[in-house]
Amino acid sequence: MFMHNKRLQYTVRVSEPNPALASLLLEQFGGPDGELAAAMRYFTQGLGEADPGRKDMLLDIATEELSHLEVIGSIVAMLNKGAKSALTEATMEEADLYMSINAGGNSHTQAILYGGGPALTNSSGVPWTAAYVDTRGDPVCDLRSNIAAESRAKIVYERLINITDDPGIKDALGFLMTREVAHQKSFEKALYSIKDNFPPGKLPGLAAYANLYVNTSQGEGDTTGPWNEGDQWERLDDIEGNLPLDGGDGDATVTLSKAEVKDYAAMAKRLASDPKATPVTGADLGGGPGAGKLSDEDMGGAADMPEAKKMALAQTKA
Amino acid sequence: MFMHNKRLQYTVRVSEPNPALASLLLEQFGGPDGELAAAMRYFTQGLGEADPGRKDMLLDIATEELSHLEVIGSIVAMLNKGAKSALTEATMEEADLYMSINAGGNSHTQAILYGGGPALTNSSGVPWTAAYVDTRGDPVCDLRSNIAAESRAKIVYERLINITDDPGIKDALGFLMTREVAHQKSFEKALYSIKDNFPPGKLPGLAAYANLYVNTSQGEGDTTGPWNEGDQWERLDDIEGNLPLDGGDGDATVTLSKAEVKDYAAMAKRLASDPKATPVTGADLGGGPGAGKLSDEDMGGAADMPEAKKMALAQTKA
Amino acid sequence: MFMHNKRLQYTVRVSEPNPALASLLLEQFGGPDGELAAAMRYFTQGLGEADPGRKDMLLDIATEELSHLEVIGSIVAMLNKGAKSALTEATMEEADLYMSINAGGNSHTQAILYGGGPALTNSSGVPWTAAYVDTRGDPVCDLRSNIAAESRAKIVYERLINITDDPGIKDALGFLMTREVAHQKSFEKALYSIKDNFPPGKLPGLAAYANLYVNTSQGEGDTTGPWNEGDQWERLDDIEGNLPLDGGDGDATVTLSKAEVKDYAAMAKRLASDPKATPVTGADLGGGPGAGKLSDEDMGGAADMPEAKKMALAQTKA
Amino acid sequence: MFMHNKRLQYTVRVSEPNPALASLLLEQFGGPDGELAAAMRYFTQGLGEADPGRKDMLLDIATEELSHLEVIGSIVAMLNKGAKSALTEATMEEADLYMSINAGGNSHTQAILYGGGPALTNSSGVPWTAAYVDTRGDPVCDLRSNIAAESRAKIVYERLINITDDPGIKDALGFLMTREVAHQKSFEKALYSIKDNFPPGKLPGLAAYANLYVNTSQGEGDTTGPWNEGDQWERLDDIEGNLPLDGGDGDATVTLSKAEVKDYAAMAKRLASDPKATPVTGADLGGGPGAGKLSDEDMGGAADMPEAKKMALAQTKA
Amino acid sequence: MFMHNKRLQYTVRVSEPNPALASLLLEQFGGPDGELAAAMRYFTQGLGEADPGRKDMLLDIATEELSHLEVIGSIVAMLNKGAKSALTEATMEEADLYMSINAGGNSHTQAILYGGGPALTNSSGVPWTAAYVDTRGDPVCDLRSNIAAESRAKIVYERLINITDDPGIKDALGFLMTREVAHQKSFEKALYSIKDNFPPGKLPGLAAYANLYVNTSQGEGDTTGPWNEGDQWERLDDIEGNLPLDGGDGDATVTLSKAEVKDYAAMAKRLASDPKATPVTGADLGGGPGAGKLSDEDMGGAADMPEAKKMALAQTKA
Amino acid sequence: MFMHNKRLQYTVRVSEPNPALASLLLEQFGGPDGELAAAMRYFTQGLGEADPGRKDMLLDIATEELSHLEVIGSIVAMLNKGAKSALTEATMEEADLYMSINAGGNSHTQAILYGGGPALTNSSGVPWTAAYVDTRGDPVCDLRSNIAAESRAKIVYERLINITDDPGIKDALGFLMTREVAHQKSFEKALYSIKDNFPPGKLPGLAAYANLYVNTSQGEGDTTGPWNEGDQWERLDDIEGNLPLDGGDGDATVTLSKAEVKDYAAMAKRLASDPKATPVTGADLGGGPGAGKLSDEDMGGAADMPEAKKMALAQTKA
Repeated sequence: MFMHNKRLQYTVRVSEPNPALASLLLEQFGGPDGELAAAMRYFTQGLGEADPGRKDMLLDIATEELSHLEVIGSIVAMLNKGAKSALTEATMEEADLYMSINAGGNSHTQAILYGGGPALTNSSGVPWTAAYVDTRGDPVCDLRSNIAAESRAKIVYERLINITDDPGIKDALGFLMTREVAHQKSFEKALYSIKDNFPPGKLPGLAAYANLYVNTSQGEGDTTGPWNEGDQWERLDDIEGNLPLDGGDGDATVTLSKAEVKDYAAMAKRLASDPKATPVTGADLGGGPGAGKLSDEDMGGAADMPEAKKMALAQTKA
Repeated sequence: MFMHNKRLQYTVRVSEPNPALASLLLEQFGGPDGELAAAMRYFTQGLGEADPGRKDMLLDIATEELSHLEVIGSIVAMLNKGAKSALTEATMEEADLYMSINAGGNSHTQAILYGGGPALTNSSGVPWTAAYVDTRGDPVCDLRSNIAAESRAKIVYERLINITDDPGIKDALGFLMTREVAHQKSFEKALYSIKDNFPPGKLPGLAAYANLYVNTSQGEGDTTGPWNEGDQWERLDDIEGNLPLDGGDGDATVTLSKAEVKDYAAMAKRLASDPKATPVTGADLGGGPGAGKLSDEDMGGAADMPEAKKMALAQTKA
Repeated sequence: MFMHNKRLQYTVRVSEPNPALASLLLEQFGGPDGELAAAMRYFTQGLGEADPGRKDMLLDIATEELSHLEVIGSIVAMLNKGAKSALTEATMEEADLYMSINAGGNSHTQAILYGGGPALTNSSGVPWTAAYVDTRGDPVCDLRSNIAAESRAKIVYERLINITDDPGIKDALGFLMTREVAHQKSFEKALYSIKDNFPPGKLPGLAAYANLYVNTSQGEGDTTGPWNEGDQWERLDDIEGNLPLDGGDGDATVTLSKAEVKDYAAMAKRLASDPKATPVTGADLGGGPGAGKLSDEDMGGAADMPEAKKMALAQTKA
Repeated sequence: MFMHNKRLQYTVRVSEPNPALASLLLEQFGGPDGELAAAMRYFTQGLGEADPGRKDMLLDIATEELSHLEVIGSIVAMLNKGAKSALTEATMEEADLYMSINAGGNSHTQAILYGGGPALTNSSGVPWTAAYVDTRGDPVCDLRSNIAAESRAKIVYERLINITDDPGIKDALGFLMTREVAHQKSFEKALYSIKDNFPPGKLPGLAAYANLYVNTSQGEGDTTGPWNEGDQWERLDDIEGNLPLDGGDGDATVTLSKAEVKDYAAMAKRLASDPKATPVTGADLGGGPGAGKLSDEDMGGAADMPEAKKMALAQTKA
Repeated sequence: MFMHNKRLQYTVRVSEPNPALASLLLEQFGGPDGELAAAMRYFTQGLGEADPGRKDMLLDIATEELSHLEVIGSIVAMLNKGAKSALTEATMEEADLYMSINAGGNSHTQAILYGGGPALTNSSGVPWTAAYVDTRGDPVCDLRSNIAAESRAKIVYERLINITDDPGIKDALGFLMTREVAHQKSFEKALYSIKDNFPPGKLPGLAAYANLYVNTSQGEGDTTGPWNEGDQWERLDDIEGNLPLDGGDGDATVTLSKAEVKDYAAMAKRLASDPKATPVTGADLGGGPGAGKLSDEDMGGAADMPEAKKMALAQTKA
Repeated sequence: MFMHNKRLQYTVRVSEPNPALASLLLEQFGGPDGELAAAMRYFTQGLGEADPGRKDMLLDIATEELSHLEVIGSIVAMLNKGAKSALTEATMEEADLYMSINAGGNSHTQAILYGGGPALTNSSGVPWTAAYVDTRGDPVCDLRSNIAAESRAKIVYERLINITDDPGIKDALGFLMTREVAHQKSFEKALYSIKDNFPPGKLPGLAAYANLYVNTSQGEGDTTGPWNEGDQWERLDDIEGNLPLDGGDGDATVTLSKAEVKDYAAMAKRLASDPKATPVTGADLGGGPGAGKLSDEDMGGAADMPEAKKMALAQTKA
């Protein structure tokens, strides 16, 4: 069971309201790497976890992330505090309020729709979705996902710190950023406390394909590195000469029943395209300069374009 | 630029149509860990990558994942091949078609809406969303995300292999699963080829909070392990006694301008709740047995419930 | 700050695993009226609330809803406990596992994608979205939204109780359902503790339109009741005779600048449709029986339809 | 069946084009409390309603809300009328058009993607979703949801009125706002015309838990009010001492079959974490200053930070 | 199988970074008519296509669209190249970085969340969704959808060309726009190579309703044109006099079993509204000036509104 | 303004309740090609349309589609009528209700969450989204989109007719399907009444690329047809020999300022990968059989797999 103390885990001191900054900070409230995503990732893992140690750790960190959701949400609430009552009480003239609404970022939606409260959206106003939570119910996957999530959250906090000069906000964001580093370390320890953590699952890979690097992108810029060269790798450069890799015909087949064969043939015949047809089409009926085969003369439609535009288009034909 | 050869990277041999199985396999076509997610994760990273070696690797693997999207999509198309023309040609009686539509999973939507073609949804019919792609434009984050994504994809393939006894499908899924293992290895190599990869970014954490483990979940089941104990950790057990961690007042504050203070006070007054009120409410007007204070006698509403239900409810009062 | 005790707020005793039931219960875990939605609704309101009493109440109830999220998630985890390791360890034959995956509801996705852990989706596998949270930052709106949300949650729990005969689950659901009743009562009390709570906001309505009932749906079934008749209402039945209500021309107009007028006219001319045209269209080219004017003879395409289908179609022509 | 008269229910007179304002008004066109949401909420309720009076009322109001969708959409179309043909005819220089596109709000997307027509998105460009519609098929829930929805729509209109000084727009918005007040009154009357409307459904709550207020958020700021004190309430302050509320062990359990027990144990063993391990982890390999235990000296990475930033970070260590 | 050459299909020369323009161009990267949508539309069609000619064409064009995704993504990456490292290295003062983040469009999210890499969102930051892909598995539908999609993509490119004066970007966008024209022509040819392509499917329409134009929107502005007049049409103007069209009672009915009838009647009775009731409601309790019947005097609440606002409101009462 | 008559446009006679069929029919209520999508597509176009003829047509058809939404919604309501009160009144035993909930499709969510009312979701329970509406504010695009949308709606109705043997439902669906055919014809007429409708917009394509067919998918199955051969086409087969098409270097470049160059170089250096490194990675630490180079012996992990599974895996190695 959860309990709550009205004190924040970290004191929030904001210098002055700034709704545009608030809308950027929402990235860590209702964004994909924000604190709700973190809390829900660990909480859903914790509920299904069989190992007592990991379960405890996941619930510890989930609970702390909820407390961070409270800290970041409180910063947002402070930054919007002036805008909230200004819009509600409407003692300003309309034009001034209108200007303040368009101060930057997506703060306009925060004001009009959410009334200056912290909303569970990202900095573009996109509502949080559980599609961000990538829990799969297997600890060696989930711990790797957590490690990655913490590292993403850390970098987003760093970006926010880089654009803020309010010392109180910088201070609180520095705390939150650091906690992500600590959490990443816990998850790393937990992953490597599982003896056999790679590859995930019980099924080994197939030896024939597990060491293969397929060089599908070629041309200038083709390089080598430890990810495709060295003792652990065989590299395949001749892609088309080894198609398919299994030595079969590279086709997709299925065995249909007699009735299915008959239906499928009927459908194919009914919907067959005639490769010898020379049909008049809707585009031909449309009859503008682009119909049929387009020639340079058809460029006349550009007659009333500004000069700069004509030049740019002309350029592409040289 | 991309090019295409109509041969698949791996031959697909399906024994017989099975739309319900097809709908499960969609998890790796249009699901969160499916091949489109993989291809788009690496492709968007590759486009913005500054390092030539990583850029090459990301485009190699993105291109291969697109080829895997083609393999898994081809399996789905084969499994639906019978259903596709059956529904189109409608030579079966309606009741038989209706039965076949309800064969399992979410195959009903695959038939009715998508006409038996492979749709970019997961196994519940939820359309693929780029919200699954967690590219952040920083390689030490993105490589960790890729490692995690490959490990998730591996385990989902393993689960699908475990429920399929069609040898051709099992064979192709085994290939696809193994390639995820190989890709994870490449991403691991690339991550550790960056000298200073932890923590992500330029800003170090704050020493005061980077080694701290906050034991927020207590009670029976509290455990220790390398994630919260040992040389690298200081553990905090007395949460409320150390609230907030920074030694401040744990409150959230902001400095408002005079006009803002005035508006805020007016708003607060207008909307104040009276803690001494004893209001009649909508619920009181509602007047059912639950209005006011509920007593045991109010349970009479349960009079026409089946016995089992009454017993179960009764139990909770004991 | 949040803290956690590993004991649940209510003991969960599940008789036996049942993944299909688990997938239905997800409605209250990651569905629109589920516990996450409740917790986040009250939590985001609490963060922005100016009134100390309401803030305290909102945080109390938000924290309890998080604890309910834990209870319902634990039931789901118990119901999936068998499926989780069965799929992972794969000691069953494939065909048996396949059957168990298709046990009902959307349990297939819970198994394949989420590995038997509780996922933040509804019973159709749709991921939870913050679009469910209708917090608007105004207490007389938000409290009404909360009252409505609690009443929805109550009824969904009742439906789940009605389909479950596992006494332990019924017991826990009964507890959760009852708490929604209690919470609704709290929100009702808080709403009516605000002196002037109707209509929301500072702006009164316009007297001319505030008492009007517009009878836009007419014909058989037109009725009266306290919602459109009595002292508080004037009813408008002659819709078209009073169009528009303001006595103007009922048109939408805007004053454009000269340059805008010129551009708009040019656009309108370029894209004008010729009302006197008799164009040959793509559909005319398409040339099936439906092209041009369809006659009864065109029904011939129905020649190979089953009898029942022909009859049904014929029926509609009689 | 619906019919339409080309006159609007209320005349729309817009002074001059303003795409940025248009993008804000979209909140009531395709936003969560907008007119489409309202129309669809009442329409879906009306279709399934058993009571003739409520059905009539729901269809009346749904039809009027569709007419309001037309009014608000017409305002948006007028505000975008200049932008629409400017972008299409492109007689301005590019730089001027570019400037006009970035006029504020999310008007850029309205121009580029929607061509200046009214789009069913909110003011952040988020497409309308039926997830906003909270119809549950039970009238005492649905009427409460409608009351709440009308009160939210009223307040959003008020906010829009507060930021607009175009008298024609203000006029039309005032009409639309007032109609929400009238609709709320109708829904209130309909709710209280149902005799037993609280709590929703047939099942009463459990007496033991229906009058309980659980004080989960404690510490400074703990208050009382009619929502947690008085005749109707028993308050629980000692949370941990009453955990769980039912007097059980507060644990979650399920009875597994023998085979399930065996599989579960195998899984748990395979994936057990070793609490005594001292593993080297990926983070340790990463080797930056954050690896291992972070000390103050590791702050050297801050060497090339601007002064203000260094000071802010330093502050947190004091 | 896909292969890749690191050369782009078209050279990208960008004059200077411009994150705000980059955010607009995302419309064609991750927007509804963007290149990913195009590639996935044709790719999913190609996988399920029975006709060899169409399958080849679909895979040709899908592959080229992936190459266009690379071109547009590369433009975005170039436009963000300066912002990317500025935010990462943070050698600018915070206030300057903050200003650059708010340069326009939704570039703020591109910077903070996506780190300056191209993200699969539209110009409002809405993540790409496979809901944009309208493949239905029937070629005469899908080809029409493709024709429409190409024409939408063409117009969006034209709008982007109209607002850009960077010659290299204009050049590349001109190429991409032209390819949409060519693709539309291919799809037109393919559609009209199917002999019987209208209406789609096997079932003809019902003659009684296939030629009918129902004039549901009447009043001033009612017009005629080839879409509702001429040889191919019968027009119905007297809507209510022909309700329903089938000559039945226009009602919806179903035959219930006895048990169902009993339950339904019980439910209806329990939830019946009393049309003769004169209930006191929550709104009446609310007691503000809007409660009961609103009179002009109630407008007093407007007392502290600015003059302009009062006038505008007053106007509506005249 | 909209008005409503309680008679349906077409009488609905349903033989008996069938919630599973109802859930399939939702495809045309709240699915991507359903009646809400149609109504909203035409309605949003109509509001912004400059041409009086097209505006009238769009409002006519939008209004009729709303009436069809009512028809299909009424069918769904009838099919769910028994389930609705069964779940509400709960006079059946739980196990029987549970069975009825799992009758097929996604009817379980319709019952539990939506209470048997028609919900604006598709047949998989995915809520309707305005992302389905592809209105772009240009009539030659929008009319093509409408033509495509009508053809998709027609085919989905045909599929539903094919699986239903209830004559009343078949009858109503036949009517609805036929109206889509009629609407498609209207939109075709309107498109070809615009003189110059191809390509859309004012800008012609570039002659050099407008007639080009790029044969990007090669190998077995390469075919020709009117879409890539004939007078209107030049075909390009040698893709890599003509890379890029513009004769440039095929690279993406941008000119950075000095400060940007410096930052970018610093970032690149800090994050450079060392191509000569031979790092130990997290995967190497993981230490299972998949670590390092996988050999055939590592297949030992398969020891406890069922025989069928072992054989299938073995097969892939032959």
